[in-house]
Amino acid sequence: LKFEGKKYHSIWYDRDKVYIIDQRFLPDQFVIERIKTADQMITAIKDMHLRGAPLLGIAGAYGTFLAHRESFSKPEPEEYYENKINVLRNCRPTAVNLSWGVGKIDSLIKSGLELTRVLAGAKALERHEVEACKNIGGNGFGLLRDLSNITGGRPVNVMTHCNAGWLATIDYGTASAPVFFARDENIEVHVWVSETRPLNQGGKLTAWEYFHENISHTVVSDNSCGYLLRNGMVDIVIVGADRVARNGDTANKIGTYLKALAAKANNVPFYIAAPLSTIDFSINSGKDIRIEERDENELKYMSEVPMVHELSPALNHAFDITPADLITGIITERGIYKPGELLRMNL
Amino acid sequence: LKFEGKKYHSIWYDRDKVYIIDQRFLPDQFVIERIKTADQMITAIKDMHLRGAPLLGIAGAYGTFLAHRESFSKPEPEEYYENKINVLRNCRPTAVNLSWGVGKIDSLIKSGLELTRVLAGAKALERHEVEACKNIGGNGFGLLRDLSNITGGRPVNVMTHCNAGWLATIDYGTASAPVFFARDENIEVHVWVSETRPLNQGGKLTAWEYFHENISHTVVSDNSCGYLLRNGMVDIVIVGADRVARNGDTANKIGTYLKALAAKANNVPFYIAAPLSTIDFSINSGKDIRIEERDENELKYMSEVPMVHELSPALNHAFDITPADLITGIITERGIYKPGELLRMNL
Repeated sequence: LKFEGKKYHSIWYDRDKVYIIDQRFLPDQFVIERIKTADQMITAIKDMHLRGAPLLGIAGAYGTFLAHRESFSKPEPEEYYENKINVLRNCRPTAVNLSWGVGKIDSLIKSGLELTRVLAGAKALERHEVEACKNIGGNGFGLLRDLSNITGGRPVNVMTHCNAGWLATIDYGTASAPVFFARDENIEVHVWVSETRPLNQGGKLTAWEYFHENISHTVVSDNSCGYLLRNGMVDIVIVGADRVARNGDTANKIGTYLKALAAKANNVPFYIAAPLSTIDFSINSGKDIRIEERDENELKYMSEVPMVHELSPALNHAFDITPADLITGIITERGIYKPGELLRMNL
Repeated sequence: LKFEGKKYHSIWYDRDKVYIIDQRFLPDQFVIERIKTADQMITAIKDMHLRGAPLLGIAGAYGTFLAHRESFSKPEPEEYYENKINVLRNCRPTAVNLSWGVGKIDSLIKSGLELTRVLAGAKALERHEVEACKNIGGNGFGLLRDLSNITGGRPVNVMTHCNAGWLATIDYGTASAPVFFARDENIEVHVWVSETRPLNQGGKLTAWEYFHENISHTVVSDNSCGYLLRNGMVDIVIVGADRVARNGDTANKIGTYLKALAAKANNVPFYIAAPLSTIDFSINSGKDIRIEERDENELKYMSEVPMVHELSPALNHAFDITPADLITGIITERGIYKPGELLRMNL
């Protein structure tokens, strides 16, 4: 994706360091953070300098490489390394990609590869995820093209949730990739960008991305999505995912479930867009997904301004589970699957 | 309701002026505003110094009285008066109570009553609405008592939306009244207070009210309400209303519809608490209710802090319609009705 004329990934390796865009400062400031150690990567993940399941996967991969590299200078290299990747793998529990990325690089390390080849493996994983998102775009594009044939002249109205764009992945995004493809094919699309409380990744990040890509969009409160769906203002809902179980139950940013219910009640198709790295074939259903609970102050304050009565307690679950029966399909890099079809995939 | 040891209504008349609590400053500051003219009342309503359907009704009543009183000194008193109450009646379109309150006092004026008796009429309407809310509390209390018999020792978990408390009415509140009754009867209740974007009347006003009444409550994002309902953390949803149609379709603060869908999907009872003044017997269904669209900046900024990418457009519908088939019952001062029963009421 381009910003001010320059092409970026949301994470990259250059010389001996990892670089990320510190998303906490967007949309006001475009800040690049340099990451030299596994601990810095752990902090960046925990404190959400970066977020988004596919990006967490690659952050986990590079973090594992860093832990391995720095372990050489430690008195107990193996213990140091195992300890670090254990923290890394668990510093955010819901997105499966994080442990997937750690696991991929860890197995290269365990197989005895030399350092430069481990790094090459992390870079290859980064490229692989870019390709995956590109193919999600191509596959999802067909849905938008078909809808544009039905809507005739008017733009296809897509609703999304949170940020499942470029910043949540390495490039293209998941839910946003079909929109970018449609734009390139001159199919008019308008996106309803749901604010996505409490961290407002929709209103802050997704809106910023679409603005810079010159894609028509409107920010709305999360509360208004039922109204829009009930009043024929949405043709399709496409959201990302943090973890998809084998039966198709999907963990995604808190609030996704409400959109899925409203889409179902109003016969609007509801799609998950996610690379295969987000599908957790080791679990049967959403019941096995751990939902992260984050600090109440993320809800209570925005840029230090109180959003609620400060003396009242708050509770901040970061994700919810959308049951498979509310999901029309899952757009992956291999094709679009009905939730039940995942059970029959052999990977 | 008591604040710092003193008993308040949310609106009252004293000597020759109307007093209101300027809710824009809560929960940080408790500011009382003095209103001397119809124009000041119109501004207070439009700019939401006060809000909440039942309170809007009484504000409309006093505003009509003020317009009438000041018309005596105008060159064209009748034209002046008609013009003012027309603006007053329409300055917020969704809550029916506003035009109800204006209409009640207007008919006293049209019947030729002298000024002091018109004022007495507005005061009587204020007392009437307090009684209505008290009776809503008594009627709704039965639901909480029954649930507490089922939950055994643990508190009954109530979910609400926006502010349907003391500040939205004159006293007691609508959705909050049964909770106050339960507290007085030593039935343990815990309330999930949904932030209620964009103006956060849940997180700011409802949480403040419950805090000062020492009622156990937790603020959550609107997005998390599906999670709570799906995980057995809610025994009953009780919300207020801005306008109920004869078939039971209900306009209430944007986001109510999503809660109703999630309650239905998880077999949690969903109740509207509203005085009869909120029921619009002149309309057959929710299709006839006009949904107010407010300034996009209410969504884009909170205390001047940007909540979204500032260059992106936003859309801000203030209410949505919950269809009757998602509503378990409507708690009024006369009793609890199934939505379909309203059609048979004769008022």
